[in-house]
Amino acid sequence: MKSIFQNHIDKEIPYLKQKKLLLAVSGGLDSMVLLHLFQELSYDIAIAHCNFQLRGVESFGDQKFVQDYAEASGIPIFVTQFDTEAFAKDYKLSTQVAARELRYNWFYELLETEKFDYILTAHHADDNLETFLINLTRGTGLEGLTGIPVQNDRVIRPLLFLSRQEIENYAKANDIQWREDSSNASDKYVRNKIRHHLIPVLKELNPHFMNSFLKTEGYLQESLAMVEDAASMVFQQVAIEKENQIHFDLNQLLQLPNYQSYLYQWLKDYGFTAWEDIYDLVDSQSGKQVFATDFRLLKDRDSLILSPIDDSEKEIEFLVNENETEVNIPLNMTFCKAADISVATNKTIFVDADQLVFPLVIRKWKTGDIFLPFGMDGKSKKVSKLFKDEKLSLIEKENTWLLCSDNQIVWVIGIRADHRFRTSNTTKNILRIEFEN
Amino acid sequence: MKSIFQNHIDKEIPYLKQKKLLLAVSGGLDSMVLLHLFQELSYDIAIAHCNFQLRGVESFGDQKFVQDYAEASGIPIFVTQFDTEAFAKDYKLSTQVAARELRYNWFYELLETEKFDYILTAHHADDNLETFLINLTRGTGLEGLTGIPVQNDRVIRPLLFLSRQEIENYAKANDIQWREDSSNASDKYVRNKIRHHLIPVLKELNPHFMNSFLKTEGYLQESLAMVEDAASMVFQQVAIEKENQIHFDLNQLLQLPNYQSYLYQWLKDYGFTAWEDIYDLVDSQSGKQVFATDFRLLKDRDSLILSPIDDSEKEIEFLVNENETEVNIPLNMTFCKAADISVATNKTIFVDADQLVFPLVIRKWKTGDIFLPFGMDGKSKKVSKLFKDEKLSLIEKENTWLLCSDNQIVWVIGIRADHRFRTSNTTKNILRIEFEN
Repeated sequence: MKSIFQNHIDKEIPYLKQKKLLLAVSGGLDSMVLLHLFQELSYDIAIAHCNFQLRGVESFGDQKFVQDYAEASGIPIFVTQFDTEAFAKDYKLSTQVAARELRYNWFYELLETEKFDYILTAHHADDNLETFLINLTRGTGLEGLTGIPVQNDRVIRPLLFLSRQEIENYAKANDIQWREDSSNASDKYVRNKIRHHLIPVLKELNPHFMNSFLKTEGYLQESLAMVEDAASMVFQQVAIEKENQIHFDLNQLLQLPNYQSYLYQWLKDYGFTAWEDIYDLVDSQSGKQVFATDFRLLKDRDSLILSPIDDSEKEIEFLVNENETEVNIPLNMTFCKAADISVATNKTIFVDADQLVFPLVIRKWKTGDIFLPFGMDGKSKKVSKLFKDEKLSLIEKENTWLLCSDNQIVWVIGIRADHRFRTSNTTKNILRIEFEN
Repeated sequence: MKSIFQNHIDKEIPYLKQKKLLLAVSGGLDSMVLLHLFQELSYDIAIAHCNFQLRGVESFGDQKFVQDYAEASGIPIFVTQFDTEAFAKDYKLSTQVAARELRYNWFYELLETEKFDYILTAHHADDNLETFLINLTRGTGLEGLTGIPVQNDRVIRPLLFLSRQEIENYAKANDIQWREDSSNASDKYVRNKIRHHLIPVLKELNPHFMNSFLKTEGYLQESLAMVEDAASMVFQQVAIEKENQIHFDLNQLLQLPNYQSYLYQWLKDYGFTAWEDIYDLVDSQSGKQVFATDFRLLKDRDSLILSPIDDSEKEIEFLVNENETEVNIPLNMTFCKAADISVATNKTIFVDADQLVFPLVIRKWKTGDIFLPFGMDGKSKKVSKLFKDEKLSLIEKENTWLLCSDNQIVWVIGIRADHRFRTSNTTKNILRIEFEN
């Protein structure tokens, strides 16, 4: 088994050998096998463990189990605890989505701060198959049938070619200890039905079913990439981005027999749900609109215009007083005096505190906002131009906040600091400003 | 039930009402229900029944059953018999593929000759679901999961929104008779497993599963259309068609991270199987080739060149002697003296027999072939130019035959007759030449 695994790694992800790898280890079967395998291979690894605090004392038991294992094996370990329920509530997310958000944000932060090359997770072939079948029972599209890929961005899933059974066999053969996870109870009925009643029949019909399924997933991933290519090519032909709007040219769009598919692909990430209304908009009179929570789609003569809703939230300002060191709304920020500056990142800047006029203001950007980007020798730039240069999507633009001092922009948060508030060798008071997203 | 059906027809395919409809009726449950429903709706219908002669006396029993029903109900009926096994053998097709080829060719012929508007078949939702699951067990791509659509081209499937159970209920409630089909035995094990062990579990997990599945199929069809869009848009950017070759520009192609997916989409209909070799060709030295039965893909500096194989078949000529009235190889043609000419079609031409030099020759086209297209007042044209104007694909060009007299082209078969052999008012002997594809 070890040799199958090693062969696979050599063939599919040979570039892992010389890299610093961060292994996501929950303490469950799959991640303990992942850990054991990479220990055996003597790769350069560390452990990241998230305690989501969703199962009380059991969660802390998992944390201790992984910590003890790391200590006994001499493997570096990073541990964090999340108030997952509160985060889910604040952002109106399901617990599962909230946990995923928190987990991956933290992993990516560790990648940066600790200079890891890749995050490794323990997803296996049955995870993809079960998700495929769950989505199939509920009704789904191509995306719902396309499993997680072996690699996307800097996350790699080396066990994706192994079935749950193979992983369990390996654990038993190698005397690996793990913690059973009592969660996912709500999902358990469906998953168990699928695990015990559907998958065995599929494997009976084709003893090599798991291999066939891995191929199927590969083909579907290729198709999905082509769907995205088509959406992006046609977008370039029919859409123009203007400031914070997107204009779709209906004369061109309606030449496509399947224009509805394209509208769906372009608009699906903006929170629209009334698809029939959107498709009807194409033929309706000027001035008609369809709304999502944060966006509107407007029929205007020969165009559909997508724009963010100018809701009252846009006007809301959050104040930061001089002595405040921490802000949690609308995003988490810390303000600390610093003895010295270190490297600024997207998440951390250093400014000359004496240039600031308190209270500082955190607000959304407005059309016409101008600042002096750091690194441009005091030349001014429209914030909208910055967004364009950074290739931000409309939805990303809308989620960006500005930190301002006396109506001057100090920081386009997470993107670029302003030149005027930079530190110099005459700076007496350095303020370190940091945010977490 | 009838009203659900009628509502559906009204909503989804309202344009059937005024049309001449040809119903494909095998005599089985599904097609007898289709027939009964359209009788009840008093639409303008006729029956087409194919006897594939695959189940001996049983096949003739089916034919008689449908013929008797048509006669008793006063519905026009067309019946044909195929030597399916022989056709399958000649063209190296599976029996199922051969039967489908024969059936649809005949249906389309009837559409033309008898002026029908649409062909209606009795495919239902379970057909699509079973095919989806069969393909899933074997490993498949998006196409294998995308069911038959309600309409493609002039074939319409009005029962696609009904399950097998609903159709059977309707048949029983309306006392409809049908013939059981004992065929598909080879497929029966897999289909039965799926019918009795997979589908019930899916329906248990979601009582509205069939509805969800119909939506899933709709979404997958949309995705497939977008995949085809992407393939065609990128083809226009990187490929040039020259005579009977296609040149792919590798410099442009390799800018796509997923260029392999595109190569697959473009080449899949040319019979290639060695996909890894094709993907390797991209990096290999000039002169390397990958072969399919009828085509080759050649690496030539910065291009991949797809071209038909100049095999000996190209040189083969089939002769037609003066007294022959029928030819079956390489395609089915009839040669009959005609008292008068009637309207020429793609499949039928009328020529002046006294202009012909026998034996006539049937051969594939060659680069440089020139003829005088009928309707162009005796101006000459390259056959390759004709193919271009008619937008024939490479594979269609390769499948085209020429009928020649003394090295002059009489007919680019199925596409255009020659000016020189046209009939006029001085013509004494008219020859009617017809082909079936």
